[in-house]
This record gives sequence, C-alpha cells and structure tokens, in this order.
Amino acid sequence: MTLDSFLARYWPAIESEMRACLQSTPADAPELKRMLHYHLGWADRNLAPVQGPTGKRIRPALCLLSCEACGGSWPESIPAAAALELLHNFSLIHDDIQDQDEMRRGRPTLWALWGTAQAINAGDALFALSQLALLRLADKGIPPACTLQAIGLFNQACLAITNGQYSDISFEGRPTVPVGEYLAMIEGKTAALVAAACEMGALVAHGAGPEGTARSGICRKEMRSFGRHLGLSFQMQDDVLGIWGDPKTTGKPAGADITRRKKSLPILHGLERSAELRSLFAQENLAESDVQRAKHLLVESGSRVFAEELAREHHERALAALDRARPLAQPAAALRELVNRLVGRDR
Amino acid sequence: MTLDSFLARYWPAIESEMRACLQSTPADAPELKRMLHYHLGWADRNLAPVQGPTGKRIRPALCLLSCEACGGSWPESIPAAAALELLHNFSLIHDDIQDQDEMRRGRPTLWALWGTAQAINAGDALFALSQLALLRLADKGIPPACTLQAIGLFNQACLAITNGQYSDISFEGRPTVPVGEYLAMIEGKTAALVAAACEMGALVAHGAGPEGTARSGICRKEMRSFGRHLGLSFQMQDDVLGIWGDPKTTGKPAGADITRRKKSLPILHGLERSAELRSLFAQENLAESDVQRAKHLLVESGSRVFAEELAREHHERALAALDRARPLAQPAAALRELVNRLVGRDR
Repeated sequence: MTLDSFLARYWPAIESEMRACLQSTPADAPELKRMLHYHLGWADRNLAPVQGPTGKRIRPALCLLSCEACGGSWPESIPAAAALELLHNFSLIHDDIQDQDEMRRGRPTLWALWGTAQAINAGDALFALSQLALLRLADKGIPPACTLQAIGLFNQACLAITNGQYSDISFEGRPTVPVGEYLAMIEGKTAALVAAACEMGALVAHGAGPEGTARSGICRKEMRSFGRHLGLSFQMQDDVLGIWGDPKTTGKPAGADITRRKKSLPILHGLERSAELRSLFAQENLAESDVQRAKHLLVESGSRVFAEELAREHHERALAALDRARPLAQPAAALRELVNRLVGRDR
Repeated sequence: MTLDSFLARYWPAIESEMRACLQSTPADAPELKRMLHYHLGWADRNLAPVQGPTGKRIRPALCLLSCEACGGSWPESIPAAAALELLHNFSLIHDDIQDQDEMRRGRPTLWALWGTAQAINAGDALFALSQLALLRLADKGIPPACTLQAIGLFNQACLAITNGQYSDISFEGRPTVPVGEYLAMIEGKTAALVAAACEMGALVAHGAGPEGTARSGICRKEMRSFGRHLGLSFQMQDDVLGIWGDPKTTGKPAGADITRRKKSLPILHGLERSAELRSLFAQENLAESDVQRAKHLLVESGSRVFAEELAREHHERALAALDRARPLAQPAAALRELVNRLVGRDR
C-alpha cells in the first residue's frame, strides 16, 4: 500500500471527525462557527460551503500512520488526529494576528476579515474545541487512563508551542539571534506538535494493552523522537527554501526571506560569520542586487551547507528513530515516503 | 464555621496549587513565566516577588465549598479549583486585549506592558496550563473517568465563554441590543464558568462513588443551577452598581457605565422604552447633567427596578437550587453567606 492510499483512506475520516467536533459549537453562535468554518477551508466568509484550501493535514496523517506503525487500529486514533489539526489551526489563527499576516492559504486571514478581537476569540474557541475533540477517544473504547495521558501530551505540546512563540516574537525586536536560541525556538514552535502527533499515535496503539510495558514505552519514545527530528528537519529545509527555493514550488518570491530579513537558520548563521552580510542587513532597503549578494555571502560563509547538513542530519535521525520503534512494514514504508515528501529530494 | 474560616483554610491551598501548576512552564521561558506571575499578582514586572492584587478567587472558593456541601473532601477538588482560576485569568488576559483595557486591578495590563502579540501568547500558555492543572486530579486519587468528566465540563464552559465573548464584542458595533440577546450573552460570558465551578465541586465529591447514581446526578444538576443563577444575579447586580453604585465601594466614578454607554441590563432595557434616552445616547458627548438625566430616565422607565428584580429573582433561584442539592449544613451556610456577600445586601 502506498502513502497515497493510506492518505486517501484517512482524509474523509479526519474531515468528518473535525466537522463532528465543530458541532459542539453552541447553536446560538452561528457567526463564531462561520469564522471557524472559513478558517478551516470549509466555507466562504458567508458560511456558504466551499471546498477551500485546508492545508495538508500532515499532523493527523502522522498520528494515524504512527498508530498503524505501532500495531494499532487507525480509526481509534481519529479523535487524536482531529484534535491535533484543530490545535494546529488554533495556533495559526493567533499566529496570523501576532505576525499581522493578512493572507493565509491564498485567502484573507480571520483578523483581516473580522478584526483582532473576534479573531483572538475564535482562536480560543478552537482551542477549547480541540480539547473536547480529545475526549472523543473514550467513544472509541480507549481506556480513560490512556485518554488522560493523551491529554497530558497534547497540552505539554501546547505549552511548548507558546514557549517557542514567545521566543519567535521576541526575536523580532533584536538585530540578530544566536543560532542556539533559534534552534531552541523551533523545538517549541515547530517540533513539539509533530512529536506529540507521532507519540499520540503510538500511545493509542498501545493504550488498550497493559499500561507501561517496555514495548509500549520504547514505541512511544522512538515515535516521539521520530516526530521531533522530522519537525526540526522540516523547519530547516523550509528555511533553506525560503532563500533558494523555486518560486514555482514555494509560492513565495525568490529570496523572499532575505527581503523580509527573516531570522531563519541560514541567515542567522551567516550573520554570525559575515560582517558584509551584517552591514547589508543594516541597510534601510535591499535592492535586487543586494539580495543576490546576500545569497552569495550565505553560500560563501558556509551557511547554506550548514543548514542543509543540519536538516539532513535530523532527517536521518528521524528515520533511525522510526526503525528503532520496530514498526509494521506497510505503515512504516508510508511514513518513510511521507518523510521523503516533506524533507527529502521529492519535495 | 463561618465563611471566612472556610476561605482562610482554602486560600493557601489554592495559591500553592496554582504555583505548582505554573512550574510546568518550561524552564527556558523565564520571560513568559514572568508575564504570568505578574498577571496573577505574584510578581512585579521584573519577576520580583510581590504580594500584588490577585482578585478574590471566587470561582475556586465556590468549587471547594460545593465539594464540601456535597459531602466531598475539599483537598481532592483543589486541582479543579486551581484550573478554574487559571482559566478565568486566561480569559481576563485576552479580554483586556479585546477591550483595549490598559489597567486591571490597579496595574497595567499584560498587553499594555508587553504588547498584543506577547499577551495573546501568554494567555494561550495559561489556557494550556489550566488544562494541565486538571490532570492533577489524578494525583488526588480521583478516578480517570471522573477526571475526564471534569475536563469535559471545563471545556464546555470555555466554549460558552467564547460564545458569550463573541456576542459581547459584536455588541460594540451596534447602537443597541435587545435585552434577550444581552441575557444570552451573560449566560456564556459570566454564568457558564461559575456554573462549571459549582458542578465540578459536586462531581469530585461524588466521583469516588459509583458513577451516575441518582444522588450524584441531582447534586451535580442542582449545584450547576445554583452557580448559573448566582453568576447571572452577580452580573445583573454589577450592572446596577455600574450606574447607581457608591464610587467608594465600586472603585468606579458614579454613573461610569452611562458615560461609557456600556450595554448593560438597565441601559438596554431603558433604550427599548425611552425615546429621550435613545436621543441622549446618540449625542457625541455626555455632560454631567446628561448623566443625571439618563439616571432619572432609567428610573422612570422602570429599568432600574427591572434589573434589580431580575437580579433578586436569580438570587432566590440560586438559593432554592442549593437547597434542592440537600447540602451539608456548614458548607451550605458558608455558600449562603458567600452568595449574600456577592449579590445580597452585604455587598
């Protein structure tokens, strides 16, 4: 079975579970519901149903594949998968306000349409809904103690996200940031939720069995490690593509991250090493020739190779952790294919 | 035992539980922790410990008293009490941003000190911490199934709060709002969390026994109803005091809610009945004589009596629900005393 056949099986189940969770929205807040449906790509701004952009549902897919890889039955982990995607979307709603981004997935963001106050509130509603989504694990016969563990993992990941977000926001006011601080930031902002997605899949797979067996412990630990390294590698690759990616593939103008002076891995590494880059970045405006020069300097300072090598290292460590979890062959092959799509040469 | 002796016993336990929950904040985010300590009244803006204003911790007190009233052991419900107070404080952080309020409890608000982006994020962190706080019920020997029910109640209350908040924010852009819509708004914004606090106390009291007994069901239902009516009555009283309260007691200038054209119960009732009030409120600025005239019109239109009567009705219904829960004598007497302090003549 290929990755795509796994994904094709999962997709409708994820969508219908997420929609069922949204039904918990009180009936007397049709507008609030509309905002959430819009953000999730299910409606236009008037709540007319559309097939809008939904994102790739990567975290739910990782959760379900991890569950199968650890010998579990994927439908049992559907509530966890839906909760992860709702939580991810909550964080995007608040992130867009924090970054003052007016567009997401080709459409105006919630705050751009409904204002900051309502968008903060819509994010909070989605946060509460993601918590309620997890409680639906009980309906799948998952033992209460296992559900509580999943809730713990989930909220520790939330906390790590806010921790990373704190750093990311505070970076904005600083001329540069040491690479070490940047790496700590993406542990929270990017890697924590991917790690939690994979561990939750493993947890649900083993949850029905006796608690705390050695097998279950190893599986959870290694799947968590798999997710963490995958998340880190993904972010680092994304940073490289933000400078050298093909605009046709990335959807962003070439060298976009240089123009925006984004504090990404290659740039921070370069700023530590090149005085010329530091003075370029201190300029008011960057001309096209400056962007080209900056790209050249980042290559010269070894910053491109540094970021690519570190991304590759985490890629390899993700695959090694997956192997140590001794996963079932078919879902493991699908996970490797997904990794390759996200951070490998197929990207 | 008087109310104050109950409260004196609870206070240190609530504070130390909340502090223990905050310890879950990752050690590498000292600034984020500082913001939360500041908001909770434990620190000044430099994280130097101070005994700052903390609020009255009413929701935790209601939870613990409800637990005792239903025959439970209050220390078992301490994690629920702490979670409720953390959730309440999360909602205040976001509320202050949404309302652009620069002061709370006599000090600058989080967003006023650290900016909107960081304040949204700090609120999110506190939301996640409140969820983790609930998981500590397990350490008190509360059965997992009961903890899951508490988590469900808690997040349904969250969702109701966001629902009420949606309405409250949307009211701002409207010249007036029907009284019925206002009442639906305060069900979510004010009453839902007070209702959840009381029901969670009852739930923990009965949680150790066989699930779903008739006794437990009645107790939960009536304590929830008690909390709901108390919350509604409290909000209505607060609305009356916002116009006719003694500035020495309320800490707000006399007639403050008229000057701010706040959409409170007496004002909305008056706007429905008095054309003169409507034209007064349509003026650009309200002089002191206009405020006096508006107060007079609100009395004349029966709006003051309407709000006072409705507050009294919910007050009585709260006490009746408490009686139907057949509570233990001492904690019930303390609850009645607390009700009287919040919405009675002692206020």
